[in-house]
Amino acid sequence: MSISFKNDYGQLAHPRILEALARYGQQTNIPYGLDSHSENASRLILDIFGARQGKTFFLAGGTQTNMVFISSVLRPFQGVLSCASGHINVHETAAVEGTGHKIYVVPGNGGKLYPQDIENAVKANLDEHMVQIKMVYISNSTEIGTIYSKQELLDLRKACDKYGLYLFIDGARLGSALTSKANDVEPSLLGKVADAFYVGGTKNGLLYGEALVIVNPDLQTDFRYHIKHKGAMLAKGYGLGIQFEEAFKDGLYFEIAKKTNDMASLLREGCLELGLDVGTSPTNQIFITFPKEAAIALINEYGCEKWEEKEDKMTIRFVTSFMTTEEEVKEALVYIKNLIGA
Amino acid sequence: MSISFKNDYGQLAHPRILEALARYGQQTNIPYGLDSHSENASRLILDIFGARQGKTFFLAGGTQTNMVFISSVLRPFQGVLSCASGHINVHETAAVEGTGHKIYVVPGNGGKLYPQDIENAVKANLDEHMVQIKMVYISNSTEIGTIYSKQELLDLRKACDKYGLYLFIDGARLGSALTSKANDVEPSLLGKVADAFYVGGTKNGLLYGEALVIVNPDLQTDFRYHIKHKGAMLAKGYGLGIQFEEAFKDGLYFEIAKKTNDMASLLREGCLELGLDVGTSPTNQIFITFPKEAAIALINEYGCEKWEEKEDKMTIRFVTSFMTTEEEVKEALVYIKNLIGA
Amino acid sequence: MSISFKNDYGQLAHPRILEALARYGQQTNIPYGLDSHSENASRLILDIFGARQGKTFFLAGGTQTNMVFISSVLRPFQGVLSCASGHINVHETAAVEGTGHKIYVVPGNGGKLYPQDIENAVKANLDEHMVQIKMVYISNSTEIGTIYSKQELLDLRKACDKYGLYLFIDGARLGSALTSKANDVEPSLLGKVADAFYVGGTKNGLLYGEALVIVNPDLQTDFRYHIKHKGAMLAKGYGLGIQFEEAFKDGLYFEIAKKTNDMASLLREGCLELGLDVGTSPTNQIFITFPKEAAIALINEYGCEKWEEKEDKMTIRFVTSFMTTEEEVKEALVYIKNLIGA
Amino acid sequence: MSISFKNDYGQLAHPRILEALARYGQQTNIPYGLDSHSENASRLILDIFGARQGKTFFLAGGTQTNMVFISSVLRPFQGVLSCASGHINVHETAAVEGTGHKIYVVPGNGGKLYPQDIENAVKANLDEHMVQIKMVYISNSTEIGTIYSKQELLDLRKACDKYGLYLFIDGARLGSALTSKANDVEPSLLGKVADAFYVGGTKNGLLYGEALVIVNPDLQTDFRYHIKHKGAMLAKGYGLGIQFEEAFKDGLYFEIAKKTNDMASLLREGCLELGLDVGTSPTNQIFITFPKEAAIALINEYGCEKWEEKEDKMTIRFVTSFMTTEEEVKEALVYIKNLIGA
Repeated sequence: MSISFKNDYGQLAHPRILEALARYGQQTNIPYGLDSHSENASRLILDIFGARQGKTFFLAGGTQTNMVFISSVLRPFQGVLSCASGHINVHETAAVEGTGHKIYVVPGNGGKLYPQDIENAVKANLDEHMVQIKMVYISNSTEIGTIYSKQELLDLRKACDKYGLYLFIDGARLGSALTSKANDVEPSLLGKVADAFYVGGTKNGLLYGEALVIVNPDLQTDFRYHIKHKGAMLAKGYGLGIQFEEAFKDGLYFEIAKKTNDMASLLREGCLELGLDVGTSPTNQIFITFPKEAAIALINEYGCEKWEEKEDKMTIRFVTSFMTTEEEVKEALVYIKNLIGA
Repeated sequence: MSISFKNDYGQLAHPRILEALARYGQQTNIPYGLDSHSENASRLILDIFGARQGKTFFLAGGTQTNMVFISSVLRPFQGVLSCASGHINVHETAAVEGTGHKIYVVPGNGGKLYPQDIENAVKANLDEHMVQIKMVYISNSTEIGTIYSKQELLDLRKACDKYGLYLFIDGARLGSALTSKANDVEPSLLGKVADAFYVGGTKNGLLYGEALVIVNPDLQTDFRYHIKHKGAMLAKGYGLGIQFEEAFKDGLYFEIAKKTNDMASLLREGCLELGLDVGTSPTNQIFITFPKEAAIALINEYGCEKWEEKEDKMTIRFVTSFMTTEEEVKEALVYIKNLIGA
Repeated sequence: MSISFKNDYGQLAHPRILEALARYGQQTNIPYGLDSHSENASRLILDIFGARQGKTFFLAGGTQTNMVFISSVLRPFQGVLSCASGHINVHETAAVEGTGHKIYVVPGNGGKLYPQDIENAVKANLDEHMVQIKMVYISNSTEIGTIYSKQELLDLRKACDKYGLYLFIDGARLGSALTSKANDVEPSLLGKVADAFYVGGTKNGLLYGEALVIVNPDLQTDFRYHIKHKGAMLAKGYGLGIQFEEAFKDGLYFEIAKKTNDMASLLREGCLELGLDVGTSPTNQIFITFPKEAAIALINEYGCEKWEEKEDKMTIRFVTSFMTTEEEVKEALVYIKNLIGA
Repeated sequence: MSISFKNDYGQLAHPRILEALARYGQQTNIPYGLDSHSENASRLILDIFGARQGKTFFLAGGTQTNMVFISSVLRPFQGVLSCASGHINVHETAAVEGTGHKIYVVPGNGGKLYPQDIENAVKANLDEHMVQIKMVYISNSTEIGTIYSKQELLDLRKACDKYGLYLFIDGARLGSALTSKANDVEPSLLGKVADAFYVGGTKNGLLYGEALVIVNPDLQTDFRYHIKHKGAMLAKGYGLGIQFEEAFKDGLYFEIAKKTNDMASLLREGCLELGLDVGTSPTNQIFITFPKEAAIALINEYGCEKWEEKEDKMTIRFVTSFMTTEEEVKEALVYIKNLIGA
């Protein structure tokens, strides 16, 4: 594969991340995440995301982070609300249920949840014969590339407060959301609206790693026990600290994210000019609709994923990564133009 | 800390491992462990460990590997037999129990289990009011540095067969066991005696990663589902493949292990000459007894862990790593000699 | 409350059930369900339900039976398909998820699942990143009083076979389903179409108890271990055996069920004559729509449950039990007539 | 079997319990334990056991009660301390581990735990790599018939307070403990020393049922959710209320318990006179040692359970129940006398 739009985790890591690992390769560090790199990375993250009273915990992957955090908060009979397209509901092999908790699913709209969804869900679960909803799970950017506005997040917070619910934000692609041209959310809003959120590394140029920020002090207690109990504590935790330190010490994290968005925009606008339906995603996952044969050719050529099929049309997903270059996008646009004979 | 004998996971990785990661840093790979590096590493491992019908799965850490594998095999009411010092019993924050399974504990002897332990455990659990033991868990090398002989492993296999039990070998430090001067086990014996075992990377010079080999075909089915379900599937699985490929393509894995053993031997023999009780461990974890004050000084100086205290004596653990040099050991021996006034 | 239509478990037990318990009250029996009463009851049930190769296990309640059976069959990453109104999805406080398994929910139609639902669900869950559906759960009669026809059950069996799924039938109100005037299912069909089903006692005149029939021999192994492991094995298991023996030795079970249906029919037809919307349920749960004020009066008078509200109308549920008499129904009809001024 | 010393749950129920069930057989009651009988029984129990601020919850069996309560209290990474002979450790098919929690086992002494055991266990589990012990589980009377003294219970409470642990008392045979001639514990002490305890019905003449008293208000919240979530909420919960109301309204519970103790004493003293080793149990489970052949004959004759075998001696367990009569004991003593030729 010379050019790939399959996903944003098809290459090991941004060169600067690998360089940082090499730089500290033989340095002796305290294990299990109690090292100075992790501490430093944590401080940088809490500052940027407006969560100075929070605590940061570094884990290896997104499903793991969701599973460990959600199960650490809920009591056995409690559940988490998600929209139907939520990653925990669709693409985690029932990992959350595996820890004993129901995901209460509502359709949502455009990959997002709204206050009315919360209210409906709470009111449908009245007594001890039904699951008790205690947490709201959202993703930003969502699984279909959309993002939450500042007002929408504030409204969700308000609805959560009204019903005594925790708000957890899956930020596997938080970088892409916050650097989107359509975004009006300051990073520091995260620390204000969420009880916890995670800042995704794996899909943003790191070798591995997600930074979970637990803002709500009630949820921080003994969290390291939860990590270890779920097999998620890395002996060489400083490997995570080194990467996140590099990513946040001078803005590399957002620089990578912005670049993926820019490349996606370039591709999306090019396709729009070709008269294609390019969807509404303002982030690094875009969904473009082609005549079926063209779509299949593109899947074969660039590793795109099939998203939806309707009559003779097929919508496919393009994802740009930290490796995607302007030249690649332009080459792809030429290929697409030829393909559809526009 | 200039010199450390705290553990074998205090430095990121052997230079060759980091070089391999850098080499493939921007190569595009299929995610989730389905890449060619993982395939290649798997083939090398299955060859070396005599398990050509086996399947290799790469996971991030030891507790995770134990937890995912054990829970994938046992039905809800079944348990696993371990000796009291077993890592799953002591140092995994009840991760196995967290998946719903009892660890049935027997004292064992010198960190090891014997056929009689198995027979006793099975006979003590007779009917549906008691846990049904279905798996035997051992570590090689053990948590106290000892190793199993070929005959001991064959005898355990026989006992497992007699009672219909699976035999699982935790190889967090398998390299050290198999390259010990006291060892008579060929790597290829593993594939013959165990239903499954794992080849530890984290404690043997890798950045992260354990290679789980499931030999018994009955236990291979749908194992990737189990990995994902427990939050243990890395998106960038090829990062594991690249490391294990490098470690096994020309013997680096065993070279690292042998060196840690050699350094531990050097230290142990030096201490023996100083008249100290140096225990019996023939691997890279050694347990040496000092007057209490000297022990405390060594803990402060080298990060050794306190193991046991008896009257005015204290036994402390020294662990050598891929970074430990002959110079460091010699310097430490001088320090020890001065300390105890020998 | 003189007359109650609240539910079918508001009185301890049918007089003959209590008499049977009294008859054997001081008889010494083997504990834990290994007694001759349980054996006898099991044989009667397997005969009647066409499952001579099956095994019967007696448990105390419906949620427990669903939870123990479903979790005994599924491997950790597997899930069960249910329609949205399924009891396991709505009214069991996430007990199934509590055992680690996802309930994959589809809307269904009229409280029932159809082959197309199965096909859609299977096709939506393709690989190891999604839950693996392995069982189909249906209720007969359903949570909204509807029943499956013979053809519908045969079709579901076929769809399950096509995709390698188990079919499990929740028979909390199986008696009412099989004695409904609208029913064309012979009891012996259950043993042919289902891998397992349960014959509900609690809602059919017993003091407590459900008879789970596991037809598929693969699913019978070690099931007593599962029961005990989930805290569901009664020491005085013969108390269950005595009740089911009495219920099935001469048809009492179906006699009770038929009577509840007859009383519900009487009430439903009376309301139909009064011009009310009486729904389509042919079993002992019926759903009748009233002007809101009348509905509230009926809730207060008879303990009916509110089901749905639309503008100025409210649908409420009437349930008849083994205690409901013709006099009570007639009295209620007079009350209703006066209430709505018909 | 004319005479049985197999267990104390071989007959359905004391005649007065069955009469009470018959008396209320057709009375309409609110389901799920919210009825007036349960309320009344609860008040009686809280008064007697000195727990007026407590709450009583009725469950069907002992393993279930242990499992539901323990799992309701512990967070995922926490465990419960038990002595090796503890019912939860030996005879519950790993039900507690099935809910995800480790049972940390210490040998104990005479079936009992002591403050030193608690201190040792807490000190052996230091950090997040080990299970966090949060609860102490004891049984009174114990699984080998012994009982705790008032001072021993107060000392355990003190040790629990010192380490921030909950104390839970399994009272499957609490009646027998509290009516033993050797007992110095007032029932009202239970409400003072325990965070929770249960008053066993199944082994004390009830058809089924255990009354769990949660004294500590922190542990009461949402407990009904836990019951339902574990499949343990009976629809006809008033069946439990009716039985416990009858048992506690005028002392029947203790009367039954005392009688079982008296019958066991009679048997034990008779055997002592015959020169046999009769152990030290002052409750309704006694352990008597016979020449092996005699022991086997008694097992066949009376259903006694084999407990231990040493050379040519065998210790067997005799349990007296609410049905055991003085005539039966005397007849058995004659049989034993003849058997051993004394």
